[in-house]
Amino acid sequence: MAAARRLTQRSARQQARRFLVEGPQAVAAALELGAAGHADLVTELFVTPAARERHPDLLAVARNAAVSVVPVTPAVLASMAETVTPQGIVAVARFLDVGLEQVLAGQPRLVAVLAAVRDPGNAGTVLRCADAAGADAVVLTTDSVDVYNGKCVRASAGSLFHLPVVRSVEPTVAVTQLRQAGLRVLAAAGGGPTDLDDLADAGGLTGPTGWLFGNEAWGLSGRLTALADDVVRVPIHGRAESLNLATAAGVCLYASARAHRDHGR
Amino acid sequence: MAAARRLTQRSARQQARRFLVEGPQAVAAALELGAAGHADLVTELFVTPAARERHPDLLAVARNAAVSVVPVTPAVLASMAETVTPQGIVAVARFLDVGLEQVLAGQPRLVAVLAAVRDPGNAGTVLRCADAAGADAVVLTTDSVDVYNGKCVRASAGSLFHLPVVRSVEPTVAVTQLRQAGLRVLAAAGGGPTDLDDLADAGGLTGPTGWLFGNEAWGLSGRLTALADDVVRVPIHGRAESLNLATAAGVCLYASARAHRDHGR
Repeated sequence: MAAARRLTQRSARQQARRFLVEGPQAVAAALELGAAGHADLVTELFVTPAARERHPDLLAVARNAAVSVVPVTPAVLASMAETVTPQGIVAVARFLDVGLEQVLAGQPRLVAVLAAVRDPGNAGTVLRCADAAGADAVVLTTDSVDVYNGKCVRASAGSLFHLPVVRSVEPTVAVTQLRQAGLRVLAAAGGGPTDLDDLADAGGLTGPTGWLFGNEAWGLSGRLTALADDVVRVPIHGRAESLNLATAAGVCLYASARAHRDHGR
Repeated sequence: MAAARRLTQRSARQQARRFLVEGPQAVAAALELGAAGHADLVTELFVTPAARERHPDLLAVARNAAVSVVPVTPAVLASMAETVTPQGIVAVARFLDVGLEQVLAGQPRLVAVLAAVRDPGNAGTVLRCADAAGADAVVLTTDSVDVYNGKCVRASAGSLFHLPVVRSVEPTVAVTQLRQAGLRVLAAAGGGPTDLDDLADAGGLTGPTGWLFGNEAWGLSGRLTALADDVVRVPIHGRAESLNLATAAGVCLYASARAHRDHGR
């Protein structure tokens, strides 16, 4: 239990190569992935008496998978959670990120790269959105938040367990490798020269695409945008100065999804 | 100063018909709107010595507009702010919402309606996104969060001062009036029968459109979706169960913006 509690710290996660999964939705997604062949993904499950009554289905799946189920009091559970409302259930899971080479070997058609994204809630929201838009993978570069941060896992609403996630790749290496693998790398930037709708109209989104999203406050570095094939702005039709990161990512990824659909992906 | 501090409470805002505007970006947008004809919008400006040095431009605009500028210590300023980092500057502004009739008289082409949206950050983010997508107005129904809540004002990043906002309209009245004014009302719902991309392909987004977005957790009520012209889902291509409210709103509003642009709005 103390070992699990330490996983709220990035360094402890890194050492154990395990992280906390909080709340029934995320735990269900983790157990489902475990059952789907990613054996031993979930190692422990901590539940309060109330949660045990509320989620007999989860408990059954856990027992079938020989996951160790540990009953805890609400106070103990709260002490091991990073989010405010873990809803009585926290699991310990093994790291499940994969290498960029492995992702690229699968000939992905849509990849989202988060470069220097620092807010875990934003990172998790973009992960969820990338999943919804049918992306084949999400890459978090070395200067981004830890994808195993509790707030990120929570904001991803289970999507961390739905699509391959790559972490700890140097930003310039990520862009270079995506391009070498035949993806068109598009940097999303408010001041970009290319309008997203124009690009879609011109058929510029139909091929394999890697979207590059930058920091919430300062966006993408010039060094990184210079490596991209194009720098694309979501058009601002009104008087807002910009869009927030998750909204912009949603609009870009869904523009790609629509273009891929129209071209019989 | 005590009067300003009370404006962190909804009831006090309602009584005074004034609210707090926190941070230089939002204050600049308020002063700009004041200068653009909405006279007496900003009534007071509280600034710390550091903020006064950092924003001489804002101070000059305020003085030109005969806004009362009150120097305060950082501690006093923090005590009157709702957000964590007001960055040394807080203004008091008069309510600026308008009636739905007034908005409809302007023959709007794109309106976003927030029904039972409870999180102020979400409401502000959608407001910002509606502004960016070129919406003509945003409507918050009676069961939604107060648009003058500090977190909502902050999340709107100035957009509260960029486009007309309507509040305190009964949800069913809002939908009925939008339809009577000739707008096609589209309810955004995860399980909706109509796919957003299909609708766009079929030309269903080219006319005047009112988008209806519901509560973060439970979506729109059946009573409300029954009143809409169509119930539309953002397609889920991957395995995510749903999108979060702000992302879904962004994708829908930008789909409308693109359709309007393509039809020479």
